[in-house]
Amino acid sequence: MRKKPPPQSFYPFFMKLGFVGIGRMGFGMARNLLGAGHEVSVYNRTRERAEALARDGATVVDSPAAACRGAEAVFTMISDDAALRDVVRGETGILHALERGGVHISASTVSTACAREMAALHAEAGQGFLSACVWGRPAVAEAGKLIAMAAGPAELLERFRPLLGAFSRAVFIAGHEPWQANAAKLCGNFMIAGMMEAFSESFATLRKCNVQPQPFLDAMVELFGSALYANYGKLIVEERFEPAGFALKLGLKDAGLTLDTARECASPMPMASLVRDRLLAAFAQDGGEADWTSVARVSAREAGL
Amino acid sequence: MRKKPPPQSFYPFFMKLGFVGIGRMGFGMARNLLGAGHEVSVYNRTRERAEALARDGATVVDSPAAACRGAEAVFTMISDDAALRDVVRGETGILHALERGGVHISASTVSTACAREMAALHAEAGQGFLSACVWGRPAVAEAGKLIAMAAGPAELLERFRPLLGAFSRAVFIAGHEPWQANAAKLCGNFMIAGMMEAFSESFATLRKCNVQPQPFLDAMVELFGSALYANYGKLIVEERFEPAGFALKLGLKDAGLTLDTARECASPMPMASLVRDRLLAAFAQDGGEADWTSVARVSAREAGL
Amino acid sequence: MRKKPPPQSFYPFFMKLGFVGIGRMGFGMARNLLGAGHEVSVYNRTRERAEALARDGATVVDSPAAACRGAEAVFTMISDDAALRDVVRGETGILHALERGGVHISASTVSTACAREMAALHAEAGQGFLSACVWGRPAVAEAGKLIAMAAGPAELLERFRPLLGAFSRAVFIAGHEPWQANAAKLCGNFMIAGMMEAFSESFATLRKCNVQPQPFLDAMVELFGSALYANYGKLIVEERFEPAGFALKLGLKDAGLTLDTARECASPMPMASLVRDRLLAAFAQDGGEADWTSVARVSAREAGL
Amino acid sequence: MRKKPPPQSFYPFFMKLGFVGIGRMGFGMARNLLGAGHEVSVYNRTRERAEALARDGATVVDSPAAACRGAEAVFTMISDDAALRDVVRGETGILHALERGGVHISASTVSTACAREMAALHAEAGQGFLSACVWGRPAVAEAGKLIAMAAGPAELLERFRPLLGAFSRAVFIAGHEPWQANAAKLCGNFMIAGMMEAFSESFATLRKCNVQPQPFLDAMVELFGSALYANYGKLIVEERFEPAGFALKLGLKDAGLTLDTARECASPMPMASLVRDRLLAAFAQDGGEADWTSVARVSAREAGL
Repeated sequence: MRKKPPPQSFYPFFMKLGFVGIGRMGFGMARNLLGAGHEVSVYNRTRERAEALARDGATVVDSPAAACRGAEAVFTMISDDAALRDVVRGETGILHALERGGVHISASTVSTACAREMAALHAEAGQGFLSACVWGRPAVAEAGKLIAMAAGPAELLERFRPLLGAFSRAVFIAGHEPWQANAAKLCGNFMIAGMMEAFSESFATLRKCNVQPQPFLDAMVELFGSALYANYGKLIVEERFEPAGFALKLGLKDAGLTLDTARECASPMPMASLVRDRLLAAFAQDGGEADWTSVARVSAREAGL
Repeated sequence: MRKKPPPQSFYPFFMKLGFVGIGRMGFGMARNLLGAGHEVSVYNRTRERAEALARDGATVVDSPAAACRGAEAVFTMISDDAALRDVVRGETGILHALERGGVHISASTVSTACAREMAALHAEAGQGFLSACVWGRPAVAEAGKLIAMAAGPAELLERFRPLLGAFSRAVFIAGHEPWQANAAKLCGNFMIAGMMEAFSESFATLRKCNVQPQPFLDAMVELFGSALYANYGKLIVEERFEPAGFALKLGLKDAGLTLDTARECASPMPMASLVRDRLLAAFAQDGGEADWTSVARVSAREAGL
Repeated sequence: MRKKPPPQSFYPFFMKLGFVGIGRMGFGMARNLLGAGHEVSVYNRTRERAEALARDGATVVDSPAAACRGAEAVFTMISDDAALRDVVRGETGILHALERGGVHISASTVSTACAREMAALHAEAGQGFLSACVWGRPAVAEAGKLIAMAAGPAELLERFRPLLGAFSRAVFIAGHEPWQANAAKLCGNFMIAGMMEAFSESFATLRKCNVQPQPFLDAMVELFGSALYANYGKLIVEERFEPAGFALKLGLKDAGLTLDTARECASPMPMASLVRDRLLAAFAQDGGEADWTSVARVSAREAGL
Repeated sequence: MRKKPPPQSFYPFFMKLGFVGIGRMGFGMARNLLGAGHEVSVYNRTRERAEALARDGATVVDSPAAACRGAEAVFTMISDDAALRDVVRGETGILHALERGGVHISASTVSTACAREMAALHAEAGQGFLSACVWGRPAVAEAGKLIAMAAGPAELLERFRPLLGAFSRAVFIAGHEPWQANAAKLCGNFMIAGMMEAFSESFATLRKCNVQPQPFLDAMVELFGSALYANYGKLIVEERFEPAGFALKLGLKDAGLTLDTARECASPMPMASLVRDRLLAAFAQDGGEADWTSVARVSAREAGL
């Protein structure tokens, strides 16, 4: 669904919010929430990153708990399951500080199991929980043009969906259980990783056939008509793997989470397994700091290039 | 490279051409050549299909050889290696009829080995050979909007490239040996098949998670920004596998040819192997007449759906 | 290394032991320890199973903690990570009850991560920890003919290795860190699962070629000269999947643990991924109670049989 | 079925035979036929290899045709499809020289398609055709201890099976169409290749876990109780890949033929695809002359070893 103006008649346009996790993605998201007129308390482990938002009107606080004070909803944008658990369950965590009726909106790419755990914890505490995962790189977050996949109780979705519009160009609803958004988000990341692997194998084969990669890439961009193909393909063709737009270690983590979901729901995903193994090979050979498009090196090396 | 007007100053705009293989794709291609003002003799095994082009000005002939009479170039658009060999090497085939200096332009998706064989045969006969493979479904061929990947000697490419513009919206050059275009074409088809498998696994997993496929498809179309994703995804979501836009048996054939090329040039393509095995499973379970998107049934059944 | 008589001169031949987990495997193992003259306190969640060992001289107790009382070493043979953690860390668990200097010998097929966790917990408590994983089905355990793969500090291995001889026909040492035995055990299970998948694909293909499975199986048994091939092959040929000798759900669990280890140490195992996905498909289609050789149904169904 | 004495009452014990292809395997096979008392005319492209059999009583001839003169049956043991076709269809080939009623017994590992083609050619010429594929390395052939998998018309099998006993310790029957033996032979080779890949992945993973390969190999030999596991495992552990017992390029060829059969009969073999891709990677990286156990290098390199 395309971005619509929030339904101002029913819900107050301006909310008091918290935002925990001012990393590369969280920064742009929080900034857009501020830009939309919301009052936002921001927390980041490395305080400097959060302070950069002060000029946009953010209140910088010292703990997740502090970000929850008086907040109708608190966003989290955190790197992984373990970090999210810390931020929620820790002594100065969200769980203890969020008011009854307050809502935790998790935008992190965490496991479906972790999302279920969060939903249960918050329910027990009389709080709400939504998953609102996003696709897009940091620059897209800053531009407010992410794609959001949300899930949770209908009433909460209706109430908080306008907030997602502050940083998203489109919002989709996966279902009424928050973890369903995480499942969809992980499958979407797998779609991208699958495209990367297809490019990697094609480029390796074509190089061995003495076919230049550029005309093939141009043809694929024309065929798929996709800017994503153009961007990813270009990175592989030019071997521009540093600095990382999205680090291989994070892609590897996500690939593992996808397979965990496949295991949970008993749905074999052989291509996801393959993609995971290729990312793991890249990790074993070069470490995980380069961009995840560097997985293309694995196919090249296998072919003796 | 985007379509440009043909360089009329150097080469005559109108050529005398042959076209062998007036199938669903060949029909639209030949018609566009006629529409561009060329004189085209057309041959098809089932004569009726060729006769439908008479009203567009085509001369309908009774053999590939007859299509070569006086032709500067003869196109072939044929279903597979064996059929192309018949049309070229048969008693009334192209090889014996094409004049010295005449050029065979093969648009068929045949193996790289077959393309090399053709190039050698024609060279021996003092004739030219180009591969000019195309992406696009029949309706796109009729609209003159295919994407072409050509390869062959530079001089021939320069001379005949304008012809490709009659039915293509873009023409790319893979290299100076004709078979290189076939390698690139096969890799492109693999890119599409890889996307189909990624969709198949994602939809199966999401169905088992009780996530509706539509919002996921919508998100992917937004994320990739690709009409191809929209079209293929829609066919899978709606399970509209009949009638076939592109029959699974043809996709299976192409997947096999991709692996043959990978074998020839010693470049392992594990995802291409996976895709081939999934198409083969679909073929074993349901036969090969349905659209190749029906490969999605394999993932669904594996998941117990 | 083949079974040798225990070095009686250095260590007392008879020890006071605990044994937690009197399942199908634990029963035979504990019984052989009793038969070798050791004093064994046995605990099982379902007390009846443990009581069957009373006639062999076992003392049946009511908690893991009770099994540790006065014991030099306590064995565990438990179904999975979670159950082992319960038995060790629970209120009436091993950790709190085992004396300083006492040793926990874990024979369970648990994850390498769990083994490392156990080693750390016991080290902190001034206790020892060994992994001593075993291959063999329940009847082999009863016959005292298992194959053991042990790992841990050299001093502990030397001291307790004779105990393993009570139920093993051969004992191998993987290294000085307990989890290394778990890694080797998981790889061994993967070797078996790989054989099953190879059989499954071969039988499916040969059935479609109208080749009877029996002569092929006979040839393979002759070629590999392996009783394991004979036994597994026979189960698949005769489709005798019930009752389970080793339940598919357990094989699926182990396959997941193998991949977890591969991930931890950054070593891609594409065949292990494939085997996992096939077991998962069998699980999705038929549930996990049948023998894990029933994975052969997946290949058969994929081939349309 | 175990080797039995030939039924001497019905068929003459001594036959006049031809043997075409005195390579490393053919040498031992022909020698055992000579040793069993048969009269054998031998042909090899490189005549020296054949002449080494003269002292065993062989008549060395100059063409496949000459080997057929007066022969009741002619064996072929040839490297691949193309070479077998040459030897059979060439001007001085078997087809033209074998008498009506004569039988061609093909022991080569050729494709099922090639075996069907041979059967048809010989049937047309009023000749018989049997496939009698063998497992075993050259030394085993010399010892007369190969394992044979034969197929063809019942009457021919009955008549010539005793001959196979001259060089085989066991003979199995795949069916009544010769190509069925080739299908079974290819699946058997896949079983071995699958074992190699399982070892390769396990050793790579265990090396990254600092587990010595030897105790793991010892445990697997104990577990599977297989000399084949011991031999192959030892080659991998000691990295003794030269000289080749069975060259990687031949293993790669066979893996391709297995997949061709799988394609023909529509039975997906994902593990066979994986094994093929790994052999292809080894070939791309190191060429095909080393022993096929050198495929283990692929897993090691992928893991960054």
